[in-house]
Amino acid sequence: MRKPPHLLQRYFPVLDWGRGYDGETLTGDLVAAVIVTIMLIPQSLAYALLAGLPPEMGLYASIVPIVLYALFGTSRALAVGPVAVVSLMTAAAIGKVAEPGSSDYIIAALTLAFMSGALLVAMGLLRLGFVANFLSHPVIAGFITASGILIAASQLKHLLGVSAHGHTLPEILGSLIADLGALNWITLVIGVAATAFLFWVRGGLKPILVRIGIAERLAGHLARTGPVFAVAVTALAAWYWNLGEAGVKLVGDVPRGLPPLTQPSFSPDLWLALAGPAVLISIIGFVESVSVAQTLAAKRRQRIDPDQELIGLGMANMGAGMTGGYPVTGGFARSVVNFDAGARTPAAGAFTAIGLAIASLTITPFIAFLPQATLAATIIVAVLSLVDFSIFRTAWVYSKADFVAVAATVLVTLVIGVEAGVTAGVLLSVLIHLYKTSKPHMAVIGQVPGTEHYRNVKRHEVITDPHILQLRVDESLYFANARYLEDKLYAMVADHPELKHVVLACPAVNAIDMSALESLEAINERLEALGVKFHLTEVKGPVMDRLKRSHFLDDLTGEVFLSQHQALCTLSSARPVNGDGQPRYDKADAELDLPDAFDKRDGDGPVAQQDRASDS
Amino acid sequence: MRKPPHLLQRYFPVLDWGRGYDGETLTGDLVAAVIVTIMLIPQSLAYALLAGLPPEMGLYASIVPIVLYALFGTSRALAVGPVAVVSLMTAAAIGKVAEPGSSDYIIAALTLAFMSGALLVAMGLLRLGFVANFLSHPVIAGFITASGILIAASQLKHLLGVSAHGHTLPEILGSLIADLGALNWITLVIGVAATAFLFWVRGGLKPILVRIGIAERLAGHLARTGPVFAVAVTALAAWYWNLGEAGVKLVGDVPRGLPPLTQPSFSPDLWLALAGPAVLISIIGFVESVSVAQTLAAKRRQRIDPDQELIGLGMANMGAGMTGGYPVTGGFARSVVNFDAGARTPAAGAFTAIGLAIASLTITPFIAFLPQATLAATIIVAVLSLVDFSIFRTAWVYSKADFVAVAATVLVTLVIGVEAGVTAGVLLSVLIHLYKTSKPHMAVIGQVPGTEHYRNVKRHEVITDPHILQLRVDESLYFANARYLEDKLYAMVADHPELKHVVLACPAVNAIDMSALESLEAINERLEALGVKFHLTEVKGPVMDRLKRSHFLDDLTGEVFLSQHQALCTLSSARPVNGDGQPRYDKADAELDLPDAFDKRDGDGPVAQQDRASDS
Repeated sequence: MRKPPHLLQRYFPVLDWGRGYDGETLTGDLVAAVIVTIMLIPQSLAYALLAGLPPEMGLYASIVPIVLYALFGTSRALAVGPVAVVSLMTAAAIGKVAEPGSSDYIIAALTLAFMSGALLVAMGLLRLGFVANFLSHPVIAGFITASGILIAASQLKHLLGVSAHGHTLPEILGSLIADLGALNWITLVIGVAATAFLFWVRGGLKPILVRIGIAERLAGHLARTGPVFAVAVTALAAWYWNLGEAGVKLVGDVPRGLPPLTQPSFSPDLWLALAGPAVLISIIGFVESVSVAQTLAAKRRQRIDPDQELIGLGMANMGAGMTGGYPVTGGFARSVVNFDAGARTPAAGAFTAIGLAIASLTITPFIAFLPQATLAATIIVAVLSLVDFSIFRTAWVYSKADFVAVAATVLVTLVIGVEAGVTAGVLLSVLIHLYKTSKPHMAVIGQVPGTEHYRNVKRHEVITDPHILQLRVDESLYFANARYLEDKLYAMVADHPELKHVVLACPAVNAIDMSALESLEAINERLEALGVKFHLTEVKGPVMDRLKRSHFLDDLTGEVFLSQHQALCTLSSARPVNGDGQPRYDKADAELDLPDAFDKRDGDGPVAQQDRASDS
Repeated sequence: MRKPPHLLQRYFPVLDWGRGYDGETLTGDLVAAVIVTIMLIPQSLAYALLAGLPPEMGLYASIVPIVLYALFGTSRALAVGPVAVVSLMTAAAIGKVAEPGSSDYIIAALTLAFMSGALLVAMGLLRLGFVANFLSHPVIAGFITASGILIAASQLKHLLGVSAHGHTLPEILGSLIADLGALNWITLVIGVAATAFLFWVRGGLKPILVRIGIAERLAGHLARTGPVFAVAVTALAAWYWNLGEAGVKLVGDVPRGLPPLTQPSFSPDLWLALAGPAVLISIIGFVESVSVAQTLAAKRRQRIDPDQELIGLGMANMGAGMTGGYPVTGGFARSVVNFDAGARTPAAGAFTAIGLAIASLTITPFIAFLPQATLAATIIVAVLSLVDFSIFRTAWVYSKADFVAVAATVLVTLVIGVEAGVTAGVLLSVLIHLYKTSKPHMAVIGQVPGTEHYRNVKRHEVITDPHILQLRVDESLYFANARYLEDKLYAMVADHPELKHVVLACPAVNAIDMSALESLEAINERLEALGVKFHLTEVKGPVMDRLKRSHFLDDLTGEVFLSQHQALCTLSSARPVNGDGQPRYDKADAELDLPDAFDKRDGDGPVAQQDRASDS
C-alpha cells in the first residue's frame, strides 16, 4: 500500500525522486539532455519567430522554465518549453494589445506567461485540474488540426520572402497573395529546399543510417538532428554569399547572454485585456502537457498527479515571465525524445537547461546569419504532422454530435481565430451534451416471457399489462430533462385511461436533483388525482439516501420496489387473476401508442443483429 | 387511440374545441369571463404602472392578446395578460434604452412585446420548447421570490408618496430613503389602508360572507373583487376631497377607446439592445405560462402541447406589440380564477377581452381619480404571495448544489438585476450539473456471497479477487468525466501490480461519446502494455450499437460480458483454482486502497439503515 506523500513531498516532488538518484540515472539523464538540447535550439528560435518575438526569447523560455518544472512537476520525462500551438495563441493574444516588434509587445508576452502561470498555480492549489476535462477530444483534435493549418499558413510568408499579417486563414492568405509581387527568389529556394530536406529527414534518413551500419537507436537520434543541420548549412550559406544583402531576411543580431531578469507588467488594463487568452492558453497548454505526461508515465507504470502538474507548469510559466520568456508547456515531440533517449528523472530537464544556457552564451553570433526561411521550414514541417483530417471521418461515423463539435471548432478557429475556436468548441460540446441529456432515451418495458428480465417493448417480444405502464428512463433526472419526463408521462397517461399503475424503473438514474424531485412530486400528485398509483423500482443507494431527505417517499401513492419483477408480481396479483391463478398478462400490442421519443434512438443497425442480452 | 391531429388543427386548436361548443359550455365561459374581467381591471392598470407605462397599456395588453391566445393556445383555461414578474422585467429592459415617460419608452415596450412574441413563435415552429427546461426549479423559485421582493420594494414609493428609482434593491431602497423627507401623509394613509384592506380581504372576507349565508363558491368569487372595491372607494375619495391638489398622485387622464393599432420599431440598434431581455422575458413568460397551463390541464385529464403553447403565447405577444400593449404571459392567479369559475374553452378568454374592451371604452374617466397608492397596494399584496423563503430550507436539506443555485439567483437578482439573476442562476445550475457529472460516483464491486449480485465493497461484505479489479461507473461517459475515469483507473492499476484483469461494469452508462471512447481506447492500450486485460460488462443496447461503429471492440484485449457474474466466472476460472475446484476468491480487505472518489459520496445516513437491496 502506497503511503500518502508528506505535504512537502507532494508540493516538491524533487524530494521524492532526488533521494534515489545514482550514477546510472545520471548517465541516462545526461544523454537525454544532450539530444534534447540539440533538438531544442532550432525549435526554440523558430517558435519565438512564430510568436512574433525576438529569437532569444525562445531560448530563454526553454531555460528557467525547464528547471522550475523539474522541481515542481510530477512527470519524469516531460520537457517544457515553447510549443507551436501556444506560440500561435500567444501571437494572437498579444497582437491585440501591442504592435509586433515594439517593447510593449515583449512586455505583453512576459505578462501573458506570468498570468497564465499564476492561473495554473492557483488552479493547482485549488485542485481545479478537472476544468481541463471540458475540452472534449473532438474539440482538441479539431483545434490542433486547425492551428496546424493556421501556423503553416502564417509561415508561408517567410518561405516566400513576402509580408503577410493577420490571425485568421482568410487574412493571412489574402495579405500573402496581395504581396506576392515582392517574392524573393533566393528566399524561396532556401525555404523550399529546407522544407523538402526536413520532410525527407523525418522518414528517409534513419533507414539510410541504419543501412550504413549505425545502430537503430543512435540512427533515430541522429535523424532528430536534421533541423540543426539545416540551420547550420543555410546560415553558413547566408554568411558566405552575404545573402542578407540580396534581400533574404536573416534572424539578425541576437544578444549573447544568460536569460535576463524581467518584470511582467501589472497594469490592470493589460491584465484585463489578456485575461481571456491567459485562461485559454493555460488550459490548452495544460491539456497538451498532461496528456503527454500521462502517456509517458503509463509506459513505466508511473503516476502523475494532474493537480501537481498544474503547479509545475504554472511555476514554469511564471518563471518564463520573469526571465525573458513567453508561455510554455510540455511539448509532445521533445518529451518523447527525452523519454526515448533514456531520461529517468526531471534532472534531465535541468541538464537540458544548462545545455541551452551554454548555447545562448555561445552560438548567438552565428544565429545572426540564419535565414528566417529555415526557421519557417522547421515550423511548417513540425506542425503539418499535427494536421489530421481523419478526425472528421471518425467523428462522422461514430457520432454526428461529435462531428458538429469538430467541424465548428475547425471552422471557427480558421475563420475567426484561435480563441474563438476553442471557446466555440467547448460551448458547443457542452450544449450538445445538455441537449442530449435533456431528451433522454426512454423505454416502455415488459417482461421477457419465462424470465425475470424486463426489456424494451420495441426491441423485444415481451409481456405487458394494460393497467400498468412500466417506463425506464436511461438518464439521471435533473432540471434539463425533468419536465420532458413529465410531458411524456402525462401524454401517455392521458392516452391510456385504463391505467392503474405507473412504474418508473430507475436502474440508470444516477442522480435526482431538486427540479426532478419537484417533477416526481408533481407526477405523483397528478396521477393521484387520476386514481393512478406511482411506483419506483431499482432506485440506487445514493439516490435513495437523498430521496429520504425529502417528503417524496411519504407522499408517494405507490411503493419503491427492489426490482421490476417484484413490482410486477405485487401489482398484477392485486388485480383479478385468470382461472389458473396467474396474473393476467396481456401481450403488448399496437394499442400502446408510444410517442416518437420511445423509438430506439440509436437504431441505425437492424434490431435482429442486436445482442438481445446486451440491451438492458 | 388518439388520432394525430390534422396539421391545420395542430396550429389552430380552435378548430378542435370550436366544433363541440354548446349552450352549457357558453354559460360556463360567460360566468368565468365576467369574474376574470372584474379581477383584471385593477390588475392590468397596476402592472402597467409597475412597468412604468401609461395605465391604459395594461388594459390594451389584456384585450387582443387574450383573443389571439384563444385562437392559437392549447390550454382551455389559461388567461394571458400583464403579470408582475414580466412587468418588472419589461421595466428593467426598456429602462435601459429609453427614459420612462417618453414616447421612446412606449415604443420600446411595444417592440419588446413584438420581439419576444416573434421569438416564441419561432421557437414553437422549430419545436424548441425544451429550452425552457434549462430553468431549473430552484432557479425559478429563487427568481420569483427575489422578483417579488424587488417589485414590492419598487412600489413602496407610491405608498409613501416619495420618488425612487433604480432596478436593484440597494438602488431602490437607497433612493427611497434619500427622498423620505418628501413623504405625503395622505398618500401614506391611503396606501397603508388599501394594503391592509387587501390583505384582509384575501383571507378574512370569504369566511364572513359564508357566515352571512352566501354560498361558498360565490363568496370565493366575491372575495376576489376586493381590489375593485378598493379602487372604487379610493377613487371616489380622491374625487370628493380633491386629493390630487393635496399632493396625492393620481393616475390621471387616460384616453378612452379601444386598443389602437401600433407599430413596433424595427430599428436594428433597438433590436440588438433588447435581444437579451427579449430572450429572457420569452423564456420566463413561457415557463410561467406553461406550468400554469399544465397544472390546470392535468386536473381535467387534458393535454397541452408545449410547442403549440409557444406559438399561442408568441401570437399573443406579437398582438400586444401591435395593439398598444406590452409583454404578456399566462398569469397564475387569473388562470386559476378562470378555471374555478367554470371556463370550459378559450372562448372564455374572448369574452373577457370583450369585457375589458367595454371597460376601456367606459371607465377611463373614472380611473383619472384613482390614487397610484391604491394600485401600488394591489401590486404589493399580489406579489408578496410570490415570496417564499421555504425554498432555501428545502434546497439546503435536499442538496447543497441546489441551495447554491437558489442563493445565487436570489442574491444576483436583488443586487445586480433581474436579467443578471436569471442568467447567473441558469449558468450556475449548468456548471454545477457538469461539475457533478465530471466526477462521477464510482464503486469497486464484489460478489455478494451466495448470489449473482455484485455490490460496492464499501457498502457490503463482498468477495473480491485480487487479480481482478471490478469497477462500476455510475454515470454516462462523456468528455467531462472521461479523463477522470482514466486518472482514477491508472492510479488504481499503478497501486496494484498484481492485477490481471480490469472489468468495467456499465449498467449505468447511458452513453459513451467520442472523448470517452478515446479514453477507453487509451485505457485498453495502456493496460495492454502492462499485461492487464480490459473487459466491459452490462453494456446497454444503444451504447453497444455505437461502439460497434468504432474499432474499439476489435482492439479490446478482453471481452464484453453480458453480466458481471458471467465475467467473474470466466475470468476467475481461467486462473488456478483451489483444491475444491472453486475459483480462489479472496475476501475484500484493507489492501484494496481506494482513492477518495470511491467513498460513498452521499453517505450522510448510516450505512446500516441503508436498504441493502436498494443499492445496486
